Amino acid sequence: MKAAIIVAGGTGTRMNSPNPKQFILLKGIPVVMHSLFAFSRFDESMQLLLTLPEHLFDRWQEIQKEHGWSIPHILVPGGETRFHSVRNCLHHLDSTGLVAIHDGARPLLSQSLINRLFLAAEKEGNAIPVVPVNESIRQAEGATNKPADRSLFRIVQTPQVFQTSLIQQAYLQPYQPGFTDDATVLESIGKPIHLVEGDPANLKITYPADLLIAASLIHSGS
Amino acid sequence: MKAAIIVAGGTGTRMNSPNPKQFILLKGIPVVMHSLFAFSRFDESMQLLLTLPEHLFDRWQEIQKEHGWSIPHILVPGGETRFHSVRNCLHHLDSTGLVAIHDGARPLLSQSLINRLFLAAEKEGNAIPVVPVNESIRQAEGATNKPADRSLFRIVQTPQVFQTSLIQQAYLQPYQPGFTDDATVLESIGKPIHLVEGDPANLKITYPADLLIAASLIHSGS
Repeated sequence: MKAAIIVAGGTGTRMNSPNPKQFILLKGIPVVMHSLFAFSRFDESMQLLLTLPEHLFDRWQEIQKEHGWSIPHILVPGGETRFHSVRNCLHHLDSTGLVAIHDGARPLLSQSLINRLFLAAEKEGNAIPVVPVNESIRQAEGATNKPADRSLFRIVQTPQVFQTSLIQQAYLQPYQPGFTDDATVLESIGKPIHLVEGDPANLKITYPADLLIAASLIHSGS
Repeated sequence: MKAAIIVAGGTGTRMNSPNPKQFILLKGIPVVMHSLFAFSRFDESMQLLLTLPEHLFDRWQEIQKEHGWSIPHILVPGGETRFHSVRNCLHHLDSTGLVAIHDGARPLLSQSLINRLFLAAEKEGNAIPVVPVNESIRQAEGATNKPADRSLFRIVQTPQVFQTSLIQQAYLQPYQPGFTDDATVLESIGKPIHLVEGDPANLKITYPADLLIAASLIHSGS
């Protein structure tokens, strides 16, 4: 049994767009829809959950009607933080199999990445995609700053794939501000995190320019 | 007196291209030429230096002839590492004024970024462009790994602008492997580093997909 949770609760204030970031069109398709398509294409029988702020539910239903889309999925109200949104979604899953938890702001996830992560999570219990840091980094230290060794760091992407029972257990904890992704929630109950090679093209849409970048990558078939 | 050093000594093995990375065409113009144009446009009287591996000198002269370009610049043989290449260039400058040191793999530097950095360096002695880390990061720790607080880190870009006399003094030191950029060389003689807001669109060309990204950003006028 496989499931995927697509988290799209953000308000996207950095996008300067009146249209919620989740629904901005990328190659004519709302950003968040790209992820639904990707998981559905990977495995048609996969259980799909989408978490959105509740005030966007009506708009989302309209968008799907307008375009005639019918990828079955469970719509789950977003919570106060990303943590609460994911927890709401996990309540809907039974405890067998694997679940991918994915940020809706990453519409370019490839089939090979999804496959690699599910295979690794099956074996290791979890699979977290990471890519190297290709630029120099510096670390703030009080009022000053110092260089950091970039070879020691990895940029963390999504989807992050977990044994459903383990991540459900981890999400029974109270919220902590250090929970920046699902891997940090899992490891706080003592589980080691298993890193897997991510995909540099699996871009996170943060700034308006990122949409142009994403469009050019889709166009090239990368 | 202003000068700019464009460092293009890399071999670019990640680009999978028989054409040296420096000369790959971006919107019909070799990557490295974009930086020469940017500095020349910013200040026509600026002294420009380009460091390339010596075996590419003839090819570079041919490329310029083919396209009829005549931006005056001093061509400096690249050294064993980036450090040695920059040091070779610094020998050509007198000690007054400011110098920008820029990676040729960042062809998208904007006029406003160059301006911001020269203004800050005039006041502070150096100016290093940085951007926030927009994704979660993890740090390797022996065989395991742990989350890192991304808000403490900044991604370092170029151009990095310095009082010429100070950076020349710093480059009198012997090479150390920790010298990943010019800021690390300067601070190793005890100078504090002054961070300035960089530009998320000031992309570093590392992978083939980055060229597509860069082309789409130029097209949009970002």
